Amino acid sequence: MKIIKGGITAPLGFRAAGIAAGLKKSGRKDLALIFSVVPAVACGAFTANKIKAAPVVLCRRKLSGNRAQAVLVNSGNANCFTGKEGLKDAENLTKLLASSLNISPQESLMASTGVIGHRLPVTKIKSKLGALIGKLSRNAGRNAALAIMTTDTRPKEIAVKLKIGKNIIKIGGIAKGAGMISPRMATMLCFITTDASIAPPALKSALKKALESSFNCVSVDGDMSTNDSLIIMANGFAGNKRIGNNTKYFESFQKGLSFVMGALAKMIAKDGEGASKFIEIKALGAKSAGDAKKAAEKIANSPLVKTAIYGDDPNWGRIAAALGASGAIFNPDRIDIALGDKCVVKNGVPVKVNKSALRAAVSKKDVFITVNLKSGKGNARVWTCDLTDSYIHINARYET
Amino acid sequence: MKIIKGGITAPLGFRAAGIAAGLKKSGRKDLALIFSVVPAVACGAFTANKIKAAPVVLCRRKLSGNRAQAVLVNSGNANCFTGKEGLKDAENLTKLLASSLNISPQESLMASTGVIGHRLPVTKIKSKLGALIGKLSRNAGRNAALAIMTTDTRPKEIAVKLKIGKNIIKIGGIAKGAGMISPRMATMLCFITTDASIAPPALKSALKKALESSFNCVSVDGDMSTNDSLIIMANGFAGNKRIGNNTKYFESFQKGLSFVMGALAKMIAKDGEGASKFIEIKALGAKSAGDAKKAAEKIANSPLVKTAIYGDDPNWGRIAAALGASGAIFNPDRIDIALGDKCVVKNGVPVKVNKSALRAAVSKKDVFITVNLKSGKGNARVWTCDLTDSYIHINARYET
Repeated sequence: MKIIKGGITAPLGFRAAGIAAGLKKSGRKDLALIFSVVPAVACGAFTANKIKAAPVVLCRRKLSGNRAQAVLVNSGNANCFTGKEGLKDAENLTKLLASSLNISPQESLMASTGVIGHRLPVTKIKSKLGALIGKLSRNAGRNAALAIMTTDTRPKEIAVKLKIGKNIIKIGGIAKGAGMISPRMATMLCFITTDASIAPPALKSALKKALESSFNCVSVDGDMSTNDSLIIMANGFAGNKRIGNNTKYFESFQKGLSFVMGALAKMIAKDGEGASKFIEIKALGAKSAGDAKKAAEKIANSPLVKTAIYGDDPNWGRIAAALGASGAIFNPDRIDIALGDKCVVKNGVPVKVNKSALRAAVSKKDVFITVNLKSGKGNARVWTCDLTDSYIHINARYET
Repeated sequence: MKIIKGGITAPLGFRAAGIAAGLKKSGRKDLALIFSVVPAVACGAFTANKIKAAPVVLCRRKLSGNRAQAVLVNSGNANCFTGKEGLKDAENLTKLLASSLNISPQESLMASTGVIGHRLPVTKIKSKLGALIGKLSRNAGRNAALAIMTTDTRPKEIAVKLKIGKNIIKIGGIAKGAGMISPRMATMLCFITTDASIAPPALKSALKKALESSFNCVSVDGDMSTNDSLIIMANGFAGNKRIGNNTKYFESFQKGLSFVMGALAKMIAKDGEGASKFIEIKALGAKSAGDAKKAAEKIANSPLVKTAIYGDDPNWGRIAAALGASGAIFNPDRIDIALGDKCVVKNGVPVKVNKSALRAAVSKKDVFITVNLKSGKGNARVWTCDLTDSYIHINARYET
């Protein structure tokens, strides 16, 4: 497997575009299109929030056929809590997109991100659709990555190539994250393209597995969005023998997909709203995988842990307190806690560590926290970022 | 019932003291003593955190006899994660306190708050014990309230008097809060005194009920402390007929206690770390009381909701998103959401409201959020505060 350039348009047969349609007050790019030149096998993963945005409802319905050819994405407006009209807006836009591209309406999807509770400016988007389609190109993956951003400070894209037998297949992806990021689902917007030929059930299994170790491990603030969507399209242009669930190359494909999604998930944690540091939390030796996840997530979502890391403060007492409040089962007299490679608690007892060495461990750009509960074989890893002044500034001043 | 002066020393037969013993680098008061001139009926409520500080372990054990006469409290050091030595430190200090006051060691308690993972400066505390006892007085309740503070910006105390038959009884209390505040227990430190005569089972029932509507409704940051302790002492000095569980005046006492604890809990929410606003969240019409609590707490702990309120931004979409992620059962097409007295969502549909009226509703010092799930009869109320730059500053720079 090798990382290559081109992001979402690296795989053969995909085109993308990203333009400014006037949805963002800043005048930045806010409308993206991802297009496969032939209908692709497709599936998705969406928010577990009880309140789902209109485009989420629409995509879930349309993807029941396991096929897609185009995804229209807007930032600046979530089209959520907009009632039946909001759903109709998304339906109409995808219909218009289908007829403009001459594809099946069923295979024309849409995703949105931005403020909740406002109707989409449909007329504005319609008037820009022609221009957007005109810009579709193999070189505009970056523009699409830019157009889906909200409070992200940088676009997130990656692509890899790998061998499937004699064929080279490529997988590319873009994502947006920043705030309202919590696991238990695809979280945030992410679009993956691949020219691999793969059967729908295999694509679904690969996606499910890749989610576990990527987006379901990221938390910025514990707030779960109403619009989280991940859509993957596989158009078969690589010409490989179709990958099925128990075939020889399933695992290779799976690894490639996990790598791409893991890389995007990490980019999202690193670019969490206001983030100055990336934090990886490992909970090891828990009674179950669920307990490990509970423990790692409670630490990852603790404002006190996150502000301590921001302040270069090796305040492991807050890690212990979060662990104790997580609901995970363990014996406090047995646990170990480490900051970076420095063990600070061994068998429930604080270890005397040089204070400046400890401070160094939490002063890095990437901070690693490990807790070992010594209660079983459950392990989990969660990625997050620190909690800073900038998170407050961004979110106290977000336009509604 | 009438609010009176004097805080924790308002009830007859109680004395208090608060001095600076050098545990806080700032030189502020950090050692408090609460003393009943006769042994009192006593009970407590403690953190549900799996990791419990040494004084919590000690108090739980000592209170098995339902009696107490003195509570020593230090701020600046939590005596948590300090192993067997830490427990011995607390034991030795309470023993010394008992012999100095000439009371039973079993009835000599201790509570601590501050940094986790450091041994108590026992010698320092021992050397100040005589001075502390010397300062015991009926006028020093405020000093005790000051000495238990950590990042609190102001002391929290209250007292009431009420009639129990022909007798006047008094209930007083002090508390400290600020950060690492989350419900599911007494949360934070709180000490209550009363001169009522009451049987241990009745005192326990009254405490349990009062907790539900007071400290178990407060959340500052969703972080649960290892040291949360509430201790109540009832010395019987009022001379009333002993209150039992099903006696005539139980309810009067219960109401008085609920009022005192509710007032202290509200003070804690208003003085949450960095707080500029108090927020009350009501979740009504949930399928169950548990569901209502889940919904209200998820909103109360949402960094996005809290930063929006800080920014005077009526961003109710974030309230809807938090509600949807809470796990509470409801139909999104039926819910109502209100900011202050302005309904912003009715039956799942946004209501057109004058933007400046809405902004006014969230610009006040006290902000009220109501969600009605229309799914049943479960109601809950949670108190919290906004999330501000100051929370970050306080917690990124807290000394360890």
